[in-house]
Amino acid sequence: MAKVGIVMGSDSDLPIMSKAADMLEKFGIDYEMTIISAHRMPDIFFDYAKTAKDKGFQVIIAGAGGAAHLPGMCAAIFPLPVIGVPIHSKALSGVDSLYSIVSMPSGIPVATVAIDGAANAGILAAKMIAISDEAVYEKIVAYKDELKDGVVAKKEKIENIGYKAYMEQMK
Amino acid sequence: MAKVGIVMGSDSDLPIMSKAADMLEKFGIDYEMTIISAHRMPDIFFDYAKTAKDKGFQVIIAGAGGAAHLPGMCAAIFPLPVIGVPIHSKALSGVDSLYSIVSMPSGIPVATVAIDGAANAGILAAKMIAISDEAVYEKIVAYKDELKDGVVAKKEKIENIGYKAYMEQMK
Amino acid sequence: MAKVGIVMGSDSDLPIMSKAADMLEKFGIDYEMTIISAHRMPDIFFDYAKTAKDKGFQVIIAGAGGAAHLPGMCAAIFPLPVIGVPIHSKALSGVDSLYSIVSMPSGIPVATVAIDGAANAGILAAKMIAISDEAVYEKIVAYKDELKDGVVAKKEKIENIGYKAYMEQMK
Amino acid sequence: MAKVGIVMGSDSDLPIMSKAADMLEKFGIDYEMTIISAHRMPDIFFDYAKTAKDKGFQVIIAGAGGAAHLPGMCAAIFPLPVIGVPIHSKALSGVDSLYSIVSMPSGIPVATVAIDGAANAGILAAKMIAISDEAVYEKIVAYKDELKDGVVAKKEKIENIGYKAYMEQMK
Amino acid sequence: MAKVGIVMGSDSDLPIMSKAADMLEKFGIDYEMTIISAHRMPDIFFDYAKTAKDKGFQVIIAGAGGAAHLPGMCAAIFPLPVIGVPIHSKALSGVDSLYSIVSMPSGIPVATVAIDGAANAGILAAKMIAISDEAVYEKIVAYKDELKDGVVAKKEKIENIGYKAYMEQMK
Amino acid sequence: MAKVGIVMGSDSDLPIMSKAADMLEKFGIDYEMTIISAHRMPDIFFDYAKTAKDKGFQVIIAGAGGAAHLPGMCAAIFPLPVIGVPIHSKALSGVDSLYSIVSMPSGIPVATVAIDGAANAGILAAKMIAISDEAVYEKIVAYKDELKDGVVAKKEKIENIGYKAYMEQMK
Amino acid sequence: MAKVGIVMGSDSDLPIMSKAADMLEKFGIDYEMTIISAHRMPDIFFDYAKTAKDKGFQVIIAGAGGAAHLPGMCAAIFPLPVIGVPIHSKALSGVDSLYSIVSMPSGIPVATVAIDGAANAGILAAKMIAISDEAVYEKIVAYKDELKDGVVAKKEKIENIGYKAYMEQMK
Amino acid sequence: MAKVGIVMGSDSDLPIMSKAADMLEKFGIDYEMTIISAHRMPDIFFDYAKTAKDKGFQVIIAGAGGAAHLPGMCAAIFPLPVIGVPIHSKALSGVDSLYSIVSMPSGIPVATVAIDGAANAGILAAKMIAISDEAVYEKIVAYKDELKDGVVAKKEKIENIGYKAYMEQMK
Repeated sequence: MAKVGIVMGSDSDLPIMSKAADMLEKFGIDYEMTIISAHRMPDIFFDYAKTAKDKGFQVIIAGAGGAAHLPGMCAAIFPLPVIGVPIHSKALSGVDSLYSIVSMPSGIPVATVAIDGAANAGILAAKMIAISDEAVYEKIVAYKDELKDGVVAKKEKIENIGYKAYMEQMK
Repeated sequence: MAKVGIVMGSDSDLPIMSKAADMLEKFGIDYEMTIISAHRMPDIFFDYAKTAKDKGFQVIIAGAGGAAHLPGMCAAIFPLPVIGVPIHSKALSGVDSLYSIVSMPSGIPVATVAIDGAANAGILAAKMIAISDEAVYEKIVAYKDELKDGVVAKKEKIENIGYKAYMEQMK
Repeated sequence: MAKVGIVMGSDSDLPIMSKAADMLEKFGIDYEMTIISAHRMPDIFFDYAKTAKDKGFQVIIAGAGGAAHLPGMCAAIFPLPVIGVPIHSKALSGVDSLYSIVSMPSGIPVATVAIDGAANAGILAAKMIAISDEAVYEKIVAYKDELKDGVVAKKEKIENIGYKAYMEQMK
Repeated sequence: MAKVGIVMGSDSDLPIMSKAADMLEKFGIDYEMTIISAHRMPDIFFDYAKTAKDKGFQVIIAGAGGAAHLPGMCAAIFPLPVIGVPIHSKALSGVDSLYSIVSMPSGIPVATVAIDGAANAGILAAKMIAISDEAVYEKIVAYKDELKDGVVAKKEKIENIGYKAYMEQMK
Repeated sequence: MAKVGIVMGSDSDLPIMSKAADMLEKFGIDYEMTIISAHRMPDIFFDYAKTAKDKGFQVIIAGAGGAAHLPGMCAAIFPLPVIGVPIHSKALSGVDSLYSIVSMPSGIPVATVAIDGAANAGILAAKMIAISDEAVYEKIVAYKDELKDGVVAKKEKIENIGYKAYMEQMK
Repeated sequence: MAKVGIVMGSDSDLPIMSKAADMLEKFGIDYEMTIISAHRMPDIFFDYAKTAKDKGFQVIIAGAGGAAHLPGMCAAIFPLPVIGVPIHSKALSGVDSLYSIVSMPSGIPVATVAIDGAANAGILAAKMIAISDEAVYEKIVAYKDELKDGVVAKKEKIENIGYKAYMEQMK
Repeated sequence: MAKVGIVMGSDSDLPIMSKAADMLEKFGIDYEMTIISAHRMPDIFFDYAKTAKDKGFQVIIAGAGGAAHLPGMCAAIFPLPVIGVPIHSKALSGVDSLYSIVSMPSGIPVATVAIDGAANAGILAAKMIAISDEAVYEKIVAYKDELKDGVVAKKEKIENIGYKAYMEQMK
Repeated sequence: MAKVGIVMGSDSDLPIMSKAADMLEKFGIDYEMTIISAHRMPDIFFDYAKTAKDKGFQVIIAGAGGAAHLPGMCAAIFPLPVIGVPIHSKALSGVDSLYSIVSMPSGIPVATVAIDGAANAGILAAKMIAISDEAVYEKIVAYKDELKDGVVAKKEKIENIGYKAYMEQMK
């Protein structure tokens, strides 16, 4: 059974939201990704949010742009954590999406990540699951090391060859 | 039967939203005002929005602050016009409310008025009804004259007594 | 006789504003689209707004960018609903247009849609007309179903083929 | 004959806009101050803007808040300089007023001053008139000296008595 | 052993952050609240974040205002979920705090709630714990009912006595 | 003798600022355009601003981006009108330029136009000169007609051929 | 001879700017504080900035609000470090001041601190001087300990008495 | 021994941050540039900041984007001046970076330069060092002359050949 539901209102959000799935795969967490619009199919959306817990979802990751209602409406129904990913928007760059997701009223929290921060949403879901899942926890610790090693390699390289050579190689 | 539904998520919005009701009373339009939170009682909200047309509502006026989902979710369900009133918020002054209401995706419009612009929401609902209701139309025309007369009186007064005396009387 | 007037101040707004016309055509509503600048031809503008009701207009859709005065000045004269479309601007991305249109003073509402939201302006006009026009109402209901079906198809597709294949096909 | 017209849409702007009049009085420039709403009395407004040149106005100072159309509509009709004063607004602090006044399209400039900067609007009008009026020019030069002397006195005081005593005396 | 650490950089944040503690008490979750500044005592901070997991913390809630580094630095060290509470700031109202907390780089998520949204941070922590703690889950479900009942009571009251009487009683 | 000084801090502003010169040429007003940085050559700048009146300048148009000090420093020295043109900036799109130019303290006004609004700066300078120059005034009136005729032609065209053909021809 | 010049354009900035002086006194650094407006007395300002190095100033701290030109103009003339303090403004809260000070063009840096951050400006000046002044360096190190001890005391107190008693004592 | 440390969290910041190094080279100041992420390798970061003074660093220049914690965390540990360079970010253009760096709490200043202003960071570091290093001071004075000469050449060119020819040559 999938532990994480990933949902977005439009397939235009898919190139961003797929990064959440990539992260969950990395941590070996089953997920279910779908496209549901709270605005265009409210009945289906309600059913999705209401049955999510029974389907075994422990976390929902919802991405939305503009008047981004999807994460907040998930949080209104689903009793476990909802992570909101504000998707950049054309005119307002995602400030509208961010404000629509983060400014939730008292009682109905949405765990908001950065604009287009779907990878972090995946990691955050994994960390929530890792509270009670040692295997996932170990993978998170390993991932932290991996992140560190990546920058350490860059640190050593720039200190060895200098920034001019480094930049040359970036081209 | 009420022609306009006025709905807000919290009674803290009531001092603002009551101005919409005042306007509708001025235009002789029956309305029904209630408090329903899309976040705290999604089932009741869904039922409200779904039955609104059958109850005779021609317009819904929805006020909300912060991650203001109520107007947009009304518009997702109710097939006739929804007017959204962004309520000022504490930290972000209502910019969050405005963006959450106005940035609706294609297909699901919300007729947005100014932050705290509930009086204008009432007038706008009346104008929508006036498209096919001559009596309301006449009242709108009369209200326009009334607005004009109010400023004309101020114009004449300041031209007669000068701005210093005028300001003196404002104290 | 046209029921909706669509007006913009410059033909540079036409690629956006044409979407309002497209929507009205979809709903079978006659409209009249023209280019009138409140700033560059105020006399012609005044005449337009004053005679709009007599020409049979039930709604005016006005698009404008920057110090976007056109929708508000229409609302100052035309007694029925005015819908304002903030057009994105070069330096300020349309925040100036949005604020200039939505922050109307009490008494003179403009039904504001999203930045560049001309399609929604057309739908909103149709919803206003649908209050008293059953045929338009039926078309709106059908359009809602169409919107839903579009996303349902995407939902089924991503659930069937997975997001990786889906993204592959988006390229 | 008055050389400067000062106009605002509401008497709530008077405490700010009166500072423009105060400045013009200081420079010995005749002015006429009135209250005209472009939104609530568009006919009277049009007549005002159209006859302003014939009445002898050389400059119009227009103050407005929110969707502040008054200065821009003056500039659309009156052929000589229009100075716009953005008045602070409740929710958006006057950013809406500023954007609505300053973002004028090419061809129709409004000389915009700071939010609530009515005193500067009066000075700017005087500077425009001083281009061809030696007496006003002399008064502007004297005013510059006065401004300088005011700060010089503070400079000397703080250097003499120190900032602690200075602050003590400010209480 | 406490399951949640609540940390803030200054006791001026305490009136806000105490609401997170109140919520955790409501859900029967042990927490430990302290004051640690990442800027003023970086060594102590590092030690806090590094030992948090061993102390049994499953979640850290960190509140900070301005250049709010505390939540992000916790997330850099602590391997389980960190919830960030942006505290309103004097000049920028908390927009600086929000951006400093939410815009985390890939790999280091912070679950951000609304400006001053400490109560929601407490609830969010409870929801994370509820993934694997049935007793907390039951309390969250009960809390959702409580939230709903609170608004239902207001809904019934305003429908019964009307908004005028309702507002009268709010005074 | 040139009546208008046009000054900018960098030749990167020239593509924008040249539009002010184009307008002045259209109105037959002599101008002098140069590049002076208040930051990089403060002595030369001071000399420029101090001698501007004696050189016959009646208006200075100053364009600047970012921490745009040039217009305000001109206004601090030159006793006649200064028009400020905020140039768009890379990161902040010109909001920084706009705020740096428009928010002048009491006593030192800068007549601010839109971001990149150099053409309007030229027209505004012409309007200031037209207060006492009948020939320039006539040209401004003619320019207003020209602006109007341009839009009238578009109005007639779209009404004649319809928006679809119109858009086709725009390609 | 004073090592630091503290300058502001108006005595209304004194309650903020005095905190820079307080800090310098704490670190035993001589300073000279005065009031000079770059806008209202540009000649005196130029003289001040030009002679500052010869007077022994090693750093200038300049505070300004709105179109805050003082720090940038100091940096244009004075060859050693200039620290800019953006003072909060009425309508724009100091965002205008911040942008006007921080967005300096290449070649003319201003070391910008937070809005109203005059205390930090004093500390920053001390740190610059401490590069070559061991005595000041020792005082900075001691000050860091003092900062730390202050928060450590609060940490211990809240851990000892609990947040409820702590808040009680804050009243 | 290097006098300036230049540090950034990611090599994506290198094209910007290299400009600080270029400037230091121009002033003949030894520096050490590296890549260290406070978020991804907090231990290494702590060690870096703690040993920086002993390595001879007199100034640290830290560049960061988004929730830009690196400069502030350097300032929390390193006792001498820290210069922060806000790097532009994708969705928020660097406003998030700017706020995260400049809004430091009292006691922990970061000398903030413009978004992407790494060249100015290098100059500012040089100015700090120049307080006690006559050779660097002389180079700064020479650089100021160089800046001036660059604009003087442009001034003379545009005055000689006119802006049209000048623009022609810019192509």
